[in-house]
Amino acid sequence: MVLYLHDIPLEKAQSAFYSELENHHLAARLGVEEVPLDEHALGRVLAEPIWAKISSPHYHASAMDGFAVRSGETIGALPGKPITLTLTDQAVYVDTGDPLPDWADAVVPIELVEPVGGNDPRHPDAIRLRASLTPWSHIRPLGEDIVATQLVLAAGHVLRPVDLGALASSGSQTLLVARKPRVAILPTGTELVPMGTVLRKGDIVESNSIVLAGQILDWGAEPHRLEITPDDFNLLCNRIQQAADTHDLVLVNAGSSAGSEDFTARIVEKTGKLLVHGVAVRPGHPVILGMIRRSDQNSWVPVVGVPGYPVSAALTGEIFVKPLIAIWLGKTPDQPEEITAHLTRKITSPPGDDDFVRVVVGRVGERMLAAPLNRGAGTITSLVRADGITMIPRGVQGYDAGQPVQVRLYRSQDQIRRTIFAIGSHDMTLDLLASALESRGRRLVSANVGSQGGLVAIRRGETHMAGCHLLDPDSGVYNLAAVKEYLPEMDVKIVRWVQRQQGLIVARGNPKDIHGLEDLEKPGVSFVNRQRGAGTRVLLDFQLKQLGIDAASILGYEREEFTHLAVAAAIASGRADCGMGIAAAAEALDLDFIPLYHEDYDLVMPREFFDSGFLDPIFDLMADVNFRQSIAVMAGYDVSLMGTVIL
Amino acid sequence: MVLYLHDIPLEKAQSAFYSELENHHLAARLGVEEVPLDEHALGRVLAEPIWAKISSPHYHASAMDGFAVRSGETIGALPGKPITLTLTDQAVYVDTGDPLPDWADAVVPIELVEPVGGNDPRHPDAIRLRASLTPWSHIRPLGEDIVATQLVLAAGHVLRPVDLGALASSGSQTLLVARKPRVAILPTGTELVPMGTVLRKGDIVESNSIVLAGQILDWGAEPHRLEITPDDFNLLCNRIQQAADTHDLVLVNAGSSAGSEDFTARIVEKTGKLLVHGVAVRPGHPVILGMIRRSDQNSWVPVVGVPGYPVSAALTGEIFVKPLIAIWLGKTPDQPEEITAHLTRKITSPPGDDDFVRVVVGRVGERMLAAPLNRGAGTITSLVRADGITMIPRGVQGYDAGQPVQVRLYRSQDQIRRTIFAIGSHDMTLDLLASALESRGRRLVSANVGSQGGLVAIRRGETHMAGCHLLDPDSGVYNLAAVKEYLPEMDVKIVRWVQRQQGLIVARGNPKDIHGLEDLEKPGVSFVNRQRGAGTRVLLDFQLKQLGIDAASILGYEREEFTHLAVAAAIASGRADCGMGIAAAAEALDLDFIPLYHEDYDLVMPREFFDSGFLDPIFDLMADVNFRQSIAVMAGYDVSLMGTVIL
Repeated sequence: MVLYLHDIPLEKAQSAFYSELENHHLAARLGVEEVPLDEHALGRVLAEPIWAKISSPHYHASAMDGFAVRSGETIGALPGKPITLTLTDQAVYVDTGDPLPDWADAVVPIELVEPVGGNDPRHPDAIRLRASLTPWSHIRPLGEDIVATQLVLAAGHVLRPVDLGALASSGSQTLLVARKPRVAILPTGTELVPMGTVLRKGDIVESNSIVLAGQILDWGAEPHRLEITPDDFNLLCNRIQQAADTHDLVLVNAGSSAGSEDFTARIVEKTGKLLVHGVAVRPGHPVILGMIRRSDQNSWVPVVGVPGYPVSAALTGEIFVKPLIAIWLGKTPDQPEEITAHLTRKITSPPGDDDFVRVVVGRVGERMLAAPLNRGAGTITSLVRADGITMIPRGVQGYDAGQPVQVRLYRSQDQIRRTIFAIGSHDMTLDLLASALESRGRRLVSANVGSQGGLVAIRRGETHMAGCHLLDPDSGVYNLAAVKEYLPEMDVKIVRWVQRQQGLIVARGNPKDIHGLEDLEKPGVSFVNRQRGAGTRVLLDFQLKQLGIDAASILGYEREEFTHLAVAAAIASGRADCGMGIAAAAEALDLDFIPLYHEDYDLVMPREFFDSGFLDPIFDLMADVNFRQSIAVMAGYDVSLMGTVIL
Repeated sequence: MVLYLHDIPLEKAQSAFYSELENHHLAARLGVEEVPLDEHALGRVLAEPIWAKISSPHYHASAMDGFAVRSGETIGALPGKPITLTLTDQAVYVDTGDPLPDWADAVVPIELVEPVGGNDPRHPDAIRLRASLTPWSHIRPLGEDIVATQLVLAAGHVLRPVDLGALASSGSQTLLVARKPRVAILPTGTELVPMGTVLRKGDIVESNSIVLAGQILDWGAEPHRLEITPDDFNLLCNRIQQAADTHDLVLVNAGSSAGSEDFTARIVEKTGKLLVHGVAVRPGHPVILGMIRRSDQNSWVPVVGVPGYPVSAALTGEIFVKPLIAIWLGKTPDQPEEITAHLTRKITSPPGDDDFVRVVVGRVGERMLAAPLNRGAGTITSLVRADGITMIPRGVQGYDAGQPVQVRLYRSQDQIRRTIFAIGSHDMTLDLLASALESRGRRLVSANVGSQGGLVAIRRGETHMAGCHLLDPDSGVYNLAAVKEYLPEMDVKIVRWVQRQQGLIVARGNPKDIHGLEDLEKPGVSFVNRQRGAGTRVLLDFQLKQLGIDAASILGYEREEFTHLAVAAAIASGRADCGMGIAAAAEALDLDFIPLYHEDYDLVMPREFFDSGFLDPIFDLMADVNFRQSIAVMAGYDVSLMGTVIL
């Protein structure tokens, strides 16, 4: 059955793939190998059940330091009527773990006997007992822990440190474990260049193969990253054939789409069997599943065409490669933890696809929240920032904000519990804060929704704190009025973070000769703006109004970016001539800066989090001289009031 | 401050250790090293924050296959009034990911244009558009994902596969990571022998060093297992000094107690500083914490004296070594998941110690249960079987059955969810079942409490099923009467597992010439019994009564073992001459067997689990010819009725 050129449902794709694997006896453990029993066996999968070869203890062992005796000879001993046993015919000293003499059937602890004669309490001439012993007292009998022939560990078990000890104690020396599947990763594409290349426009640093190799290592198999192959049909044919001849699985990345230089599907068709071309999952639908015939003509090797966008590539690994490796190792695949969390915003979804959405997860008060990340398949940062993934199934067009969804976690719940949400205005010093918090047991997750958006998030109980710099035009004071307006009923605290310089970011050398907001109206000057709700936007609009400048007369006023760095990047790349932002963003990208205003950037926190101790590592840092200094050296920052409680 | 010879509280021991480490500047990251950015960097800990060196994309990239154009030239295009742009001065074909020409500021997707002239739709003479484009449409602008200078990952971050991709894409090629601490593990003890040695009485297979090495690998450091050193003061001194000279941490296992050959504390005192000798934790209290001066006289190395019992050794690693390695790597130590579970039985605890109790955890119906494991420090199987650990703090004398306790999990919650509890009678075929279930997505945890104990566990809602073989003396029928008696109100099902032979297990060659229960009264014949409530015990007592034999006349009648194998082991080791049990146990230990009775061994299951599908893998196995055969070949088993629903 060949299914290609248009997307088919995930289950149908998987069943086509697995039934073909079964035809070739490739849907079971691949093979076994013998490894020494040492710490390097950690994580390997047992290929056979391990039955104890020896018992533990393998002899009757004394459980105490004391004297081995015959219990029968102690009968009748009483506090007022001791019995004396002579060494060494009636009693022998034994340390804990020593074997019991054949004639003995009990041990009396050394602290319960009275030594008679001799200088060493361990070697008296005789001992006196004032209580009788029952047979087998203070003895760890042979097999107490493990009896030879007993099951120690089942086949399919993944070895942990303690397992190694039990296996050694029960007589194993080597272990039969599943052979690690050999997985070839073949990066293809004329545009790909290796790390470290001086980049020209159009070059893409080849990075997917490292991610795939890391996944494969994590999942217990052996990755082999092959060299980058340009889009050349015959060369690709040869390389794929070579990879198939020497591996158990071939991943071709990318060329899996239907473009003019997407050869993978044609090559699979030519050298083997194309089973699936296109799966109705998002991101990642141009997946190829097939089989390649080895040069020996007798055996077949599965091949997966992995889409090129990094988010798609990683997801394809999780969906198609991880379960196959588990089958080949003979283990139950680990299911990630699942939790229920509430979406912080609406998400829409194409009704035809199983739509995988990466989310950041955090507990804010009593609510577990899932904040959807940027959904572009090319957005590498969404992979790094993701705490988990949720799936919107086919037939569903999306979910509203507040909807509870099941999230498969990428991080431990402990890490989630340590997460501080900072939803609000963007400031570059939050990156420094995130970095410093990592070693203080907290993880900072910030989402840039602007100052107003942050206050809304606080109102909805969706963030632990919000960066905020909203000027009150009447008083000239920052944040107090806005907090009263947006959070009239809430008990919140405002803590000064930094004072910072706002101004115009312009290209190096200021070629358009811009010196103030008045110059934005000059012909030929293009502007890049911040989004509505951002404090910088509020400040701009306020100042334009003061100056009587009509926003409609500014070219690019409607073009919105979400961070200071994005504004700076637009200017650095020539997409705009200037934008409003902070000095540090200009400095970071080596641009010029025209300082115009000072503003207060504060952290707004609901009282419950301010009081709870959860945010204490942030307060510790605000008081830390080194941390303050690391911010003060950045252009345009004043930290003298950092940590002052404003409200 | 030297604290030794008697146990001190855990926190006091830790603070003495860490303040001394701080004195020597050893309570922080040890050092850094540069490693290549590839899959082998997985799990390493970043030593510095990583800021993006290049933006991603690092140029304005087309987000679609289509034509790069000037948006200004499309103004006015309407469905009825197309605009025509000529190639290549007004439009140029671009693939997804291609750089935008300098003069262009928008891309129109290929499916939205009408080609004019030419044979290749990608290279027509001109294109016709019927809609205008806004600037920057269908473009991924420079820095859309990552802007150079932005934080990619914080210091202290533990690298995952996706992180490697983001680091490569943002311009890293090598990474500065924390150096792995070098940890020496020195096994000491004249009784220790390496794996594979032919064992004599008193020999102990050295296995702790493998467990410790595995733990240390897992925790991100580099273990070095040194050779076994006998109990020789001077030799040990030299070996410990050598280890200290070449490592960051020395673990001496064992010799940490106060016995005549326990030299570790004295050596630490001689070659450095003894800080702590004895910590009030159970198991594992004879812990030594100290510092050794290196031969260069300038630097110091921490040393931990690890107790010899395997359970104590593993716990000492978790409590003292794991957090130190995390500090040395500069990362937040992973906190294991914690859950609340209800104790299945009462546990008592010495009030002076922090008492760590290993438990098996499972969900039975709606209840999460924790069954305490055998608490002997020497019980290796308790390490392997443990799903988690709970701590009874100092000052508490124990907990009652049903008490909710916090359990730190060693396994994922997914594994816990897949656990089938089988509390009840012991049969050796349950080991085979456990082994076969491992590859079927279930984990069988069995506790041997006897048939009656199993029915009680069902009544209490503490098990998914119970092995049961209780003879009704009136009807001669197994289990039906007992289930009615013990579970009168419950809806349970009874499924036939096996029929098996019960009889007397005797030494090879039957030296005491035993042929039936009558012979148990013979002088010189010693018996080993099963515990009260065991089906085998019920059968024995019934048959003794039938024969008019007085239990008091049987030597060893009061000596109880909990499994068939334990009974067989008692006979194999000469501790008893005979015991009642199943043929397979005699066969396993190469003993003789006198068959006496056939009995029905059934699985009793509450209706809710019988119906739920959770136990389906067991039903699948009961119908599996290979599985049935693997049982039928064992001595004394009949599987012909396996899977028959009795009730």
